[in-house]
Amino acid sequence: MLYKKQIEVCFTPALLNLYDIKEKNVVLVDILRATSAICTAFAWGVKEIIPVGSIEEARKCKDKGMIVAGEKDGIVLDFADFGNSPYNFMNKKIRNASIAYCTTNGTKAIKAASNAHLMIIGSYLNFTAIKTFLQNDSHDVLIFCSGWKNRFNLEDTLFAGALSEQLLIDNNFTTICDSTFASVDLWKTAEPNLMEYIQKCAHRNRLRKLGLDDVIEYCHTFDKTNILPILSGHKIIAFREK
Amino acid sequence: MLYKKQIEVCFTPALLNLYDIKEKNVVLVDILRATSAICTAFAWGVKEIIPVGSIEEARKCKDKGMIVAGEKDGIVLDFADFGNSPYNFMNKKIRNASIAYCTTNGTKAIKAASNAHLMIIGSYLNFTAIKTFLQNDSHDVLIFCSGWKNRFNLEDTLFAGALSEQLLIDNNFTTICDSTFASVDLWKTAEPNLMEYIQKCAHRNRLRKLGLDDVIEYCHTFDKTNILPILSGHKIIAFREK
Repeated sequence: MLYKKQIEVCFTPALLNLYDIKEKNVVLVDILRATSAICTAFAWGVKEIIPVGSIEEARKCKDKGMIVAGEKDGIVLDFADFGNSPYNFMNKKIRNASIAYCTTNGTKAIKAASNAHLMIIGSYLNFTAIKTFLQNDSHDVLIFCSGWKNRFNLEDTLFAGALSEQLLIDNNFTTICDSTFASVDLWKTAEPNLMEYIQKCAHRNRLRKLGLDDVIEYCHTFDKTNILPILSGHKIIAFREK
Repeated sequence: MLYKKQIEVCFTPALLNLYDIKEKNVVLVDILRATSAICTAFAWGVKEIIPVGSIEEARKCKDKGMIVAGEKDGIVLDFADFGNSPYNFMNKKIRNASIAYCTTNGTKAIKAASNAHLMIIGSYLNFTAIKTFLQNDSHDVLIFCSGWKNRFNLEDTLFAGALSEQLLIDNNFTTICDSTFASVDLWKTAEPNLMEYIQKCAHRNRLRKLGLDDVIEYCHTFDKTNILPILSGHKIIAFREK
């Protein structure tokens, strides 16, 4: 019998220790906004992104002359070159640059998943590239949602559902994971009116309060790039076929 | 403006520390099967249930002459009087008895939530009694799913959705919790064909392997009793209006 690749979904970093990720392709998701911003940066030609987990680390990178993208709870750090909005990376200056990237949720999740077989940065912006890679590769898949301060969030879960649904159509994938079933069903509920559905997400309410909700539609746009950003050592670089 | 009571849903014991439960009514849910079994026991007149977290504790209760209901990973403990199936409690011998109850998931969750304002044992079997109590009481609500070995599970989440949906119809409740929105939408998806939907739950597959899936339909039956089992000290007793 053909081995079918397993799909699992982890809803928050607080649950990651329940999954054995060493032999899995992990797709890290923080739709609003870290992984959408990183995919945008690669679409605009960034050479590499160094995730940093603290303001102190970000400041050291700035002192070394690096470009720093950084926010704390949605507010741009005073010494940073710009914030974490995907729009900040639509800038010719970042071409071939190294950028230090400081974020509330995303960086912690990246570090938590760094012992995966391969860690891919996932967003709607590179959806088909991810799907195609996972279809052609032999490893099981964990879609790892960044959540919000270790809680479940809807926007990352919907992405997990969209990707799982597409993979499960393919006869080479299967799942016995309730989180995956739930994600797919939530995606099916949300998809016909995605922007309306996203209105009710708690994180959207937080972004709106900060006047940042202009990115939401962009962050739910499919296939702006075919680049797969992956973690390599402590850096995020573009994946290239060997 | 009228204060609206908040509803939140916690998907697994591994996330409970993210919620401040001291001033909340916590509804503990382990549909397959701990909380369904406990509600059944009260419907059949048990006096009190003492949750025990280890086989050693269960054995001590047996040595003291108590009735012991106990399983480990779905297999009845050799010294126990019976297992954890709700059907085991449909027995006149339990009337006015004290029962020690040992279970894989439920007991740990009960202990984890023991500092709540009030901890209520929830199941479909006492659904309307819970709903009515929460409507008439002034405290915020957390629906606490036992999950499966700290992972998310569908059957507890569906119950959380069913209860949240009913409470949110009432103008005295509101939510900003993504887990609550997700639970309600999953319930709406599942409800029209609940038994068919439950087929795909991972836990159902585990029960089926053990030949125990005869309880699933019973555990999804509404309103067999109007008793509210609550935690009082280290015991579960029937709530009585003061």
